[in-house]
Amino acid sequence: MANPQELSVKLVVDMWHTHIQRCNQLLEALSDEQLLREIAPGKNRGIYLLGHLTAVHDRMITLLGLGERLCPQLDGPFLSQPDRAAEDTATVSELREYWNAVNTALAEGFTTLTPEAWFQRHNAVSEEDFAKEPHRNKLNLLLNRSHHLAYHFGQIVLL
Amino acid sequence: MANPQELSVKLVVDMWHTHIQRCNQLLEALSDEQLLREIAPGKNRGIYLLGHLTAVHDRMITLLGLGERLCPQLDGPFLSQPDRAAEDTATVSELREYWNAVNTALAEGFTTLTPEAWFQRHNAVSEEDFAKEPHRNKLNLLLNRSHHLAYHFGQIVLL
Repeated sequence: MANPQELSVKLVVDMWHTHIQRCNQLLEALSDEQLLREIAPGKNRGIYLLGHLTAVHDRMITLLGLGERLCPQLDGPFLSQPDRAAEDTATVSELREYWNAVNTALAEGFTTLTPEAWFQRHNAVSEEDFAKEPHRNKLNLLLNRSHHLAYHFGQIVLL
Repeated sequence: MANPQELSVKLVVDMWHTHIQRCNQLLEALSDEQLLREIAPGKNRGIYLLGHLTAVHDRMITLLGLGERLCPQLDGPFLSQPDRAAEDTATVSELREYWNAVNTALAEGFTTLTPEAWFQRHNAVSEEDFAKEPHRNKLNLLLNRSHHLAYHFGQIVLL
């Protein structure tokens, strides 16, 4: 039987994959035209949420020490700026490709991490701070981003 | 320094409390009238999501072995039935009270659980199944419901 450390990693990683799968099923069911619509009147469009989630997940690659991120160009339009601040810099079709590439890179990276590695610090916390706050580990980052995904998934389903 | 088991419990329980707090801040900022509106045209109303989350959290009390649930009367209108299936059986004001009572009961119950207890089975899984699937523990149930909360929180913010 798995020990608590292995079990904890399994719980959080499984929850991540479950939400990625649900989101992928939804995205496949939505047309590009639907993703260009607002989730509610005056609120973010589907394309913005897709780009936003892709940018946040892309940053996880470096935060978790899994290599170089793939799409730093998404930070400006999908993290720094709100929706419709400028002309769209990527099409829905391109964002779908980025989304899949980034999540595939993460999934592959996850397989290289041992249970112990998940309890080491992520790259947004210093060694000094981690010594004082040992809960700021890689698993916590994944847990945080998994909730972030669920939050926006609850919005994309409204399209 | 905490061991991985204690740390894992802290991560998931902290994440739960963070989302409850965010949701409470939002609910305080929303008027009863706002909560009677739809989150998007033709979609669930805020009152339904508040009742739905309260019912799901209320069921957690028994699933986690923390005592008797407080509001079983919410299951019919907020779990079995979709929004607007019948006349509202509770006011927004009543649901706000139930919401706070249920989450307070859960928070108090959490303090009685040791890290080891979080890794024991929850009451929706049999002993036989738990022997085969040891990840179906109380911590996993909390993790699941925490994502469920984030999902609907992402919808309530649209009000």
